[in-house]
Amino acid sequence: MIKVKLLEHTPNPERVVAMSARLCYSASGAEELAEKMSPEQVEKLVSKIVQMGHASTMEHVSFTFGIEGISRVLTHQLVRHRLASYSQQSQRYVAEHDFEYILPPTIADKPEAKAKFEALMQTIRSTYDELTEMGVPKEDARYVLANATETKIVVTMNARSLMHFFNLRCCNRAQWEIRELAYKMLAEAKKVAPLLFKNAGASCVATGHCPEGAMTCGQFAEMIKMREK
Amino acid sequence: MIKVKLLEHTPNPERVVAMSARLCYSASGAEELAEKMSPEQVEKLVSKIVQMGHASTMEHVSFTFGIEGISRVLTHQLVRHRLASYSQQSQRYVAEHDFEYILPPTIADKPEAKAKFEALMQTIRSTYDELTEMGVPKEDARYVLANATETKIVVTMNARSLMHFFNLRCCNRAQWEIRELAYKMLAEAKKVAPLLFKNAGASCVATGHCPEGAMTCGQFAEMIKMREK
Amino acid sequence: MIKVKLLEHTPNPERVVAMSARLCYSASGAEELAEKMSPEQVEKLVSKIVQMGHASTMEHVSFTFGIEGISRVLTHQLVRHRLASYSQQSQRYVAEHDFEYILPPTIADKPEAKAKFEALMQTIRSTYDELTEMGVPKEDARYVLANATETKIVVTMNARSLMHFFNLRCCNRAQWEIRELAYKMLAEAKKVAPLLFKNAGASCVATGHCPEGAMTCGQFAEMIKMREK
Amino acid sequence: MIKVKLLEHTPNPERVVAMSARLCYSASGAEELAEKMSPEQVEKLVSKIVQMGHASTMEHVSFTFGIEGISRVLTHQLVRHRLASYSQQSQRYVAEHDFEYILPPTIADKPEAKAKFEALMQTIRSTYDELTEMGVPKEDARYVLANATETKIVVTMNARSLMHFFNLRCCNRAQWEIRELAYKMLAEAKKVAPLLFKNAGASCVATGHCPEGAMTCGQFAEMIKMREK
Repeated sequence: MIKVKLLEHTPNPERVVAMSARLCYSASGAEELAEKMSPEQVEKLVSKIVQMGHASTMEHVSFTFGIEGISRVLTHQLVRHRLASYSQQSQRYVAEHDFEYILPPTIADKPEAKAKFEALMQTIRSTYDELTEMGVPKEDARYVLANATETKIVVTMNARSLMHFFNLRCCNRAQWEIRELAYKMLAEAKKVAPLLFKNAGASCVATGHCPEGAMTCGQFAEMIKMREK
Repeated sequence: MIKVKLLEHTPNPERVVAMSARLCYSASGAEELAEKMSPEQVEKLVSKIVQMGHASTMEHVSFTFGIEGISRVLTHQLVRHRLASYSQQSQRYVAEHDFEYILPPTIADKPEAKAKFEALMQTIRSTYDELTEMGVPKEDARYVLANATETKIVVTMNARSLMHFFNLRCCNRAQWEIRELAYKMLAEAKKVAPLLFKNAGASCVATGHCPEGAMTCGQFAEMIKMREK
Repeated sequence: MIKVKLLEHTPNPERVVAMSARLCYSASGAEELAEKMSPEQVEKLVSKIVQMGHASTMEHVSFTFGIEGISRVLTHQLVRHRLASYSQQSQRYVAEHDFEYILPPTIADKPEAKAKFEALMQTIRSTYDELTEMGVPKEDARYVLANATETKIVVTMNARSLMHFFNLRCCNRAQWEIRELAYKMLAEAKKVAPLLFKNAGASCVATGHCPEGAMTCGQFAEMIKMREK
Repeated sequence: MIKVKLLEHTPNPERVVAMSARLCYSASGAEELAEKMSPEQVEKLVSKIVQMGHASTMEHVSFTFGIEGISRVLTHQLVRHRLASYSQQSQRYVAEHDFEYILPPTIADKPEAKAKFEALMQTIRSTYDELTEMGVPKEDARYVLANATETKIVVTMNARSLMHFFNLRCCNRAQWEIRELAYKMLAEAKKVAPLLFKNAGASCVATGHCPEGAMTCGQFAEMIKMREK
């Protein structure tokens, strides 16, 4: 099971975003603005920033997540998000002789498929051990490890980059495992910046606009229909 | 005078960096590591990370500065650092009829030069006012404003990007105004992450290596000579 | 007058984009795909990529522009686009005693305003010369130069970054000078990649979606109305 | 075997870099400089740029490689280079029932290890096929695929990013497979920009400076000793 923990984040994230936005249009400096703005002003301004998509001010606050219980299928996709920072458990240095693995639901649901899958994981474990016992270094023995192998990662993104990540990865068209991760990260982010992330999520929800064209899941069209009623 | 204030930063920056580095080589997860590591382990690991230049782990912590009392000569250079986030006071929206300005020391030192400079600033102010009174919008009246005009900016960089910024901008070959800013930012960063930024500064100091070639200021050669004695 | 020249670009940009997109869904390698695809297949695929916003494949082709006749008001905005590369004429090293300047139309239109503006530019030139004659270095004399001062720059962006640049800067809400630049860059890009940039432009035109909210220019609403008729 | 093909690159890469560098210090525009500079001037300036590390001008030229015959061990490392663009063959969409694989030399060298490895690859193939036959979608069946599975990718980097990639990945401390790729990419790049990439390679070779500290391979110390003789 995916485990997501918000390890640290910029303190007072909504105040920082509001103050940065305010600075652009004000004769006052940041420190003065940070002190002067009332909670109500912060709230109002953050809502406006989110609605207007004044995205650059959201970059001033960043969020660091500790993530476990995910596969390397997921992380190979995740690290393609380049406006982010990663530190990942290394298969070059960490021994994997008793690795955990992620079992996709479509396989878990079929007893026969599940048995095949689990038997294979066991075979991989044995082969990995045999290879390392023959003197093959960990960095080469890992070539036999499956995409399903569990990994751990620390991820830091700023709020703008997170919003974009949610747009793509909370989408119904995203792969199920990374979508599950995205929703858990969003839940964590909302706890500390509820206004900022209030409408965050898939593009359709967050921007009122589905970019998937002919590949759309149809949810957006549903939303439009419901709104029109 | 340049005014730099560290507005916010990732809490426990050195613990976050150490934990992220540790994760790469460990079977444990981030949360467990964050709790388990003693202050001594954090200290030791951060020193090693800095010395080895394990730079990617430094990206997990970011620092947000409020900066005032700087010219647009400086900010046009500053915003060329692309691995950073900026919110700047806009001359398009903020009226500049009584703008402040930055007076370079080589001009301040010569009474006659200073008089010419200040008279010109006064002329610019009058012209700006006359133009706006004739109905020219602020966004066009600003075309007359000087590079010296004071501006305010909020800057966020992660520690890796900051290190690189200090390498280039604490260097004796950097322009005097941005160098002054860089030293003030470094002083602020050191207050909250003293180990991480202990040796931060110009390339020669931080990396034991001067990249300026024939344009070197000579300080590095001096350092080497002193060390050899 | 703004002068934009496409100096170089990735050859066969549309073929490169199509081949990269194809590779993701094919068992064949890039070289084979590059050779096998017919011009019709390339055309069809590029149109689909643009329509679907499969933006990452557009990053493989880049465009290098030589730009002259622009102000530093413009370049201070331009260099805020961080997914791009810049080389700009330096006021630190290049003497500016007979600098050219950009005259905003709202000032050019009013004879009295224009006279004031031009007189000020003349005063700045004299002061710049007097300062350098008194021994003030160019890097400090430049503090008196106006935002209007002409500058030259080389800019490289990949097609994805260009698309985003056009979304923001071809918009009616963009500042007039950078908007003029954006349209000239778009015209140049269209000459060598007509299909790729066919619908490029402001967000409303390119994405069918206006992100300006209450600040909208209204053109998008007009477009929708016209389409409905 | 790794297959690397330079598919496209910015034409006249050394002239573009030289012209961009020249622009910073000249009153002339880019187009004029591009025409006026003699091949000798370009040569001299490029050598100086490389030696001085005037890296930003190298960003104006980019190189697109088609790469085959590499493992997903390699690509998971490769895509961590964020200042680059990637299009990779997708295991979500492309069927892998007869996938190729990369056999590490330390395994190939031991007949018994090799036999175990190959038997396992055969078992994975069978399991993959059985799962898809049971109706498991490709995007989930891929969870059983090994890190060794062959993949194809298109990579674009500008010359600055390439230089950095070579600094890290031509290093003796880099993992063998990505090191092999790096040397092949370097050989390709040298064919079209021999001066620019003349000294490119591991940090020790390219910058005269080994950043590996206590983990150094020792080659740099050897180089220094040889030079002193």
